Amino acid sequence: MDASVTPLRHSGLFLCQTTDFFYPLVDDPYVQGKIACANVLSDLYALGVTNCDNMLMLLAISSKLTEKERDVVIPLIMKGFKDTATEAGTDVTGGQTVINPWITIGGVATSVCQPSDIIMPENAVVGDLLVLTKPLGTQIAVNAHQWLDMPEKWDRIKGVISEAEVRKAYSRAMDSMSRLNRTAASLMHKYNAHAATDVTGFGILGHAQNLARNQRGEVSFVINNLPILAKMSDVAKCCGNMFQLFQGFSAETSGGLLISLARDQAPHFCKDLEKTEGYQAWIIGSVEKGNRTARIIDKARVIEVPGKDRQGELW
Amino acid sequence: MDASVTPLRHSGLFLCQTTDFFYPLVDDPYVQGKIACANVLSDLYALGVTNCDNMLMLLAISSKLTEKERDVVIPLIMKGFKDTATEAGTDVTGGQTVINPWITIGGVATSVCQPSDIIMPENAVVGDLLVLTKPLGTQIAVNAHQWLDMPEKWDRIKGVISEAEVRKAYSRAMDSMSRLNRTAASLMHKYNAHAATDVTGFGILGHAQNLARNQRGEVSFVINNLPILAKMSDVAKCCGNMFQLFQGFSAETSGGLLISLARDQAPHFCKDLEKTEGYQAWIIGSVEKGNRTARIIDKARVIEVPGKDRQGELW
Repeated sequence: MDASVTPLRHSGLFLCQTTDFFYPLVDDPYVQGKIACANVLSDLYALGVTNCDNMLMLLAISSKLTEKERDVVIPLIMKGFKDTATEAGTDVTGGQTVINPWITIGGVATSVCQPSDIIMPENAVVGDLLVLTKPLGTQIAVNAHQWLDMPEKWDRIKGVISEAEVRKAYSRAMDSMSRLNRTAASLMHKYNAHAATDVTGFGILGHAQNLARNQRGEVSFVINNLPILAKMSDVAKCCGNMFQLFQGFSAETSGGLLISLARDQAPHFCKDLEKTEGYQAWIIGSVEKGNRTARIIDKARVIEVPGKDRQGELW
Repeated sequence: MDASVTPLRHSGLFLCQTTDFFYPLVDDPYVQGKIACANVLSDLYALGVTNCDNMLMLLAISSKLTEKERDVVIPLIMKGFKDTATEAGTDVTGGQTVINPWITIGGVATSVCQPSDIIMPENAVVGDLLVLTKPLGTQIAVNAHQWLDMPEKWDRIKGVISEAEVRKAYSRAMDSMSRLNRTAASLMHKYNAHAATDVTGFGILGHAQNLARNQRGEVSFVINNLPILAKMSDVAKCCGNMFQLFQGFSAETSGGLLISLARDQAPHFCKDLEKTEGYQAWIIGSVEKGNRTARIIDKARVIEVPGKDRQGELW
């Protein structure tokens, strides 16, 4: 499970808790703070828990920063983290800060819930459809962006992507990683989701496998669509097996929710998310009878996100 | 305050939460895990909160460890942390592990409380006595122990302390730092404590000043006794101003609670703690009329702990 769920001594309430911390992966400290906060909260949202009662911040300041760098960078990271907590309707009330060779940013998210607030990720049934709420490829976009300054790496991919396209993919990745999965969590209740997880370091298939293993029913997950940030599948193809994108193991940061929904509910969920948030969600697979595994079909369809690219527009 | 206290949406309950993480300071990984856990929990205990509902573990594994070192050291740290959590009547249900240049161990402690479970650290009154539940000098003992292997440092202190005495002080420090402040927290309720904090990185006076600043009444704290691990005041004297022990700023790890108790309650508190736990507590000062500051009197009395040293005995 993405967060720990502990019964409390008080009147049937549950403590739902998660912690995560990260090393920076984007070069904008404010956005990095936002991404870290969204990623921490995402573990609660994966359980359908929409209200976080409290956050703590975990921060390590690099011993290699100059005093000036530190005084510029660290407050921006903290502001990004706090702003996203505010956006999520919660507060950062404490935390811990240390000096460390590497900058680290993360936090703790806690919710005290009624049992009905929690959707235990274990009730997928045969016939369900699998929905994904953010595109894949964030790690590839981050790497491609770093490679703009590394000629030997850039040479490898420049045949399939322009510098402008890299920058756009990177902006999209930052936007996507900063976005809360809170609306998706709330729609999980509206459309009676059966199980969900969030897609992060193990990639879409890694997390699908974890989720499948956790099911009560004899089910397996089959993925046949891979929504990927525009041009990132081309970049992945140039890099051999480096990202394992098509195998489903390309790491994501603050990725979308992967949700198992009844067949007749899934399309409504996607439509509602797009209407409410302005972001697309995709039906990427289905639940079959099986022994709690997950797989991607051969020749899964790559969906370029967004479908049609328009000059100057982020999405 | 040592932990964050947040009102919850549910029937008058409060969320009481703290996080801390540390770099190792003792060479026994199991004990290091215990110390980290005791130190994290101590922030709850300082508020009189005796029941922790959940813990998460924060762990960074050093990238400089060999695989073999890692497979020996890390499980021991984790076991120490978990054993102390069990001793505290709670469980570690999750956490986060990363690779980092420096080993890091810490955690998150959370309690969902009735308001009556929490003793807000703000009600000290003139005439109170100040009680301390663990001796000072842990940092000095840890350093002196490291200096056994550093001839130029050892030369500085070997005139006032033997190697055996250093080892004994180090064992006492490890024992003291591993010990939970839970009994003290529970006795705070029994003897109606007015305010408390735990003594860690800022030293006894640093934390007394923080606590004084937080008081509702016009009070100040005056400290006249300094209970210090046996021989550590001699070591501190040899080291000039390095530790700032007598100024009250020598850092402690997982130190005792500093508690403001009514004058007639303080001696009973100390007796009860000794009876229940077998460890001494000391009346170290008093609360006077003042402007929310704290000070140590000139020529404060040093109390050697334990009072009488016996061969082969830890305390």
